[in-house]
Amino acid sequence: MNIYDQITKPTLLLDETIVRRNIARMAEKARRSGVVFRPHFKTHQSAEIGEWFREEGVTAITVSSVDMALYFAQHGWDDILIAFPVNLRQLAELNQLAEQVNLHLLLESVVAAERLSAGLRHAVAVWLKIDVGYHRTGLDWQDMAAITAVARTVDTLPRLHLAGLLTHAGYRYQTGGAAEAQAVYGQMVNRMNTVRDGLRAVGLETAVSVGDTPTSSLVEQFTGVDEIRPGNFVFYDMMQVDLGACRPEDVAVAVACPIVAKHADRRQIVVYGGAIHLSKERLVTRDEQVNYGRIALPTASGWRILPPENYVATMSQEHGIIQADNALFDGAQIGGLLLVLPVHSCLTANLLKGYLTLDGRWIEMADIH
Amino acid sequence: MNIYDQITKPTLLLDETIVRRNIARMAEKARRSGVVFRPHFKTHQSAEIGEWFREEGVTAITVSSVDMALYFAQHGWDDILIAFPVNLRQLAELNQLAEQVNLHLLLESVVAAERLSAGLRHAVAVWLKIDVGYHRTGLDWQDMAAITAVARTVDTLPRLHLAGLLTHAGYRYQTGGAAEAQAVYGQMVNRMNTVRDGLRAVGLETAVSVGDTPTSSLVEQFTGVDEIRPGNFVFYDMMQVDLGACRPEDVAVAVACPIVAKHADRRQIVVYGGAIHLSKERLVTRDEQVNYGRIALPTASGWRILPPENYVATMSQEHGIIQADNALFDGAQIGGLLLVLPVHSCLTANLLKGYLTLDGRWIEMADIH
Repeated sequence: MNIYDQITKPTLLLDETIVRRNIARMAEKARRSGVVFRPHFKTHQSAEIGEWFREEGVTAITVSSVDMALYFAQHGWDDILIAFPVNLRQLAELNQLAEQVNLHLLLESVVAAERLSAGLRHAVAVWLKIDVGYHRTGLDWQDMAAITAVARTVDTLPRLHLAGLLTHAGYRYQTGGAAEAQAVYGQMVNRMNTVRDGLRAVGLETAVSVGDTPTSSLVEQFTGVDEIRPGNFVFYDMMQVDLGACRPEDVAVAVACPIVAKHADRRQIVVYGGAIHLSKERLVTRDEQVNYGRIALPTASGWRILPPENYVATMSQEHGIIQADNALFDGAQIGGLLLVLPVHSCLTANLLKGYLTLDGRWIEMADIH
Repeated sequence: MNIYDQITKPTLLLDETIVRRNIARMAEKARRSGVVFRPHFKTHQSAEIGEWFREEGVTAITVSSVDMALYFAQHGWDDILIAFPVNLRQLAELNQLAEQVNLHLLLESVVAAERLSAGLRHAVAVWLKIDVGYHRTGLDWQDMAAITAVARTVDTLPRLHLAGLLTHAGYRYQTGGAAEAQAVYGQMVNRMNTVRDGLRAVGLETAVSVGDTPTSSLVEQFTGVDEIRPGNFVFYDMMQVDLGACRPEDVAVAVACPIVAKHADRRQIVVYGGAIHLSKERLVTRDEQVNYGRIALPTASGWRILPPENYVATMSQEHGIIQADNALFDGAQIGGLLLVLPVHSCLTANLLKGYLTLDGRWIEMADIH
């Protein structure tokens, strides 16, 4: 059976073999390093794909919102970290979760700790968000006074149990590959352990949890930490290819898009597949080309990735404009299909809300808005 | 009652007074010009908001996908234009629609016309997509040979009725305001009428339909056309403010976002509200600042827009990082709310899938992925 015949509109295809390989490789690396593997489920947001992680021995997970925690709690997960500064407006849902599962929350201020403790009826594990240089959010790793103040508050308040220190490096890799990643990882771990040592000096014990797909993909051994939380690696995407974190053939998802028009004068193909399917996440390549995805063609067993000269050049709400080389342009038929390997698979999956496997099975994901 | 008390997570607020004013103003301008007002419903995607258009005399609508056409057909609309090059993989749904409603489709090639005619069981009105210089898609307005070939094909094939010529200018305005818009509009209408005259010379009569919110907002009189199809004006957004198409106080939607952290050293506020709520649509202002939305604060009657120094500086999947002036930063409380006026309201609404009115009523929208 050819799944491509049944596709009528933009559809997120998933190659289960690649997904399971990506999961197995990361799980094995975590086992070898002796660290807890607490994968981030925000990328796939699917109970069924979650089971593939369970088959690799995963029992603890990370999510990025209370709604996502509720979804996975309903699907049998009982050790859940919400890796997002606690949202005090969702105390009712947090209480519901804390009653059901081993709930881990993220804090970075005394005021949030006090209000959380006052609003909770059940115990939760608390992690402090540490900023090791990304400057998105978290307590500055060099500000031990502030970190100690929050840690002490958590340690003394009822229902809060100080569990550890958490960071997301979010480093933008340049061109250094594994050597650069190892250096970045080393610096991050040093900074986290400086903080851990600082807290230990005042009698507070903490675990260290680190995240991010590029670093986790590129380092060989997770030394100096207790837990890793990569998420995107389950699918990877063109941003990770650009960062050197994976090869194009490790990308496990592609959006099938019907071809609706061709423009020979500018060698462009118009597809049904735009910003509401792919997202507006853009990739600026090293030669300053802006693109919204790489092109592949359907094959009997999956897809074949075309050279980088074939890419999504612009988008509107429903249109994608594909810049094509001669071979792609000449072969493309109105009414046929092209595949787009997304720039950022998390955002694309979140828009398309489900997956079609290469053997024609539909995989549901959480429907969270 | 204060609606802000009930908000626990990113929520799209809608000011019904502004929406109705935006609709009334455009409807009145179309009436005054004696043109058909066929608004694009892809922005709001809501049956209830559609009724507000009906109250202004609207009977014909534009959508951007077959699924959206099916949704509005179910909600009593019977004159629907799908302003997207026809997707030949959805012939089953097109037949279903063509049986139920007065269906208008868009074509730009002989091959698509032939395959459409062969696959249809019911009559449809056909519009030719004309490219007046935007180069996204459509037949080049200067290529009369190609346009005539498609028009003749449509005219002779069964079940296809040649209705007209359609364009979407998509012009990026610079700084010229209404005078520039009038010049752009004049050029677009001239080009469309050149094509219409060319077809008339070979015995083919066509209507002319034009779209886009900035032009429709800025010109005073719709001369030389039969129909207008603006859509975004129903809500407007910061992109339209930047283009000069509206004032900030014409923007009818804002995303309420819980405040989860503050960073005094860089005067940034972290909110729950990121790429999966706002979209990654970015605005590069004239002084090269990149932002993802403007900030407003809740008031008793709606919201108050803050100076442009307050904006969404960066985003991840769930986080928004707000750059704040001193007044905003000092007043912001963890657990409180900020409002974000989106850069592109169509994409934001598509992500949030519904609206909370200022009087606390929930407005559903189509749930199309």
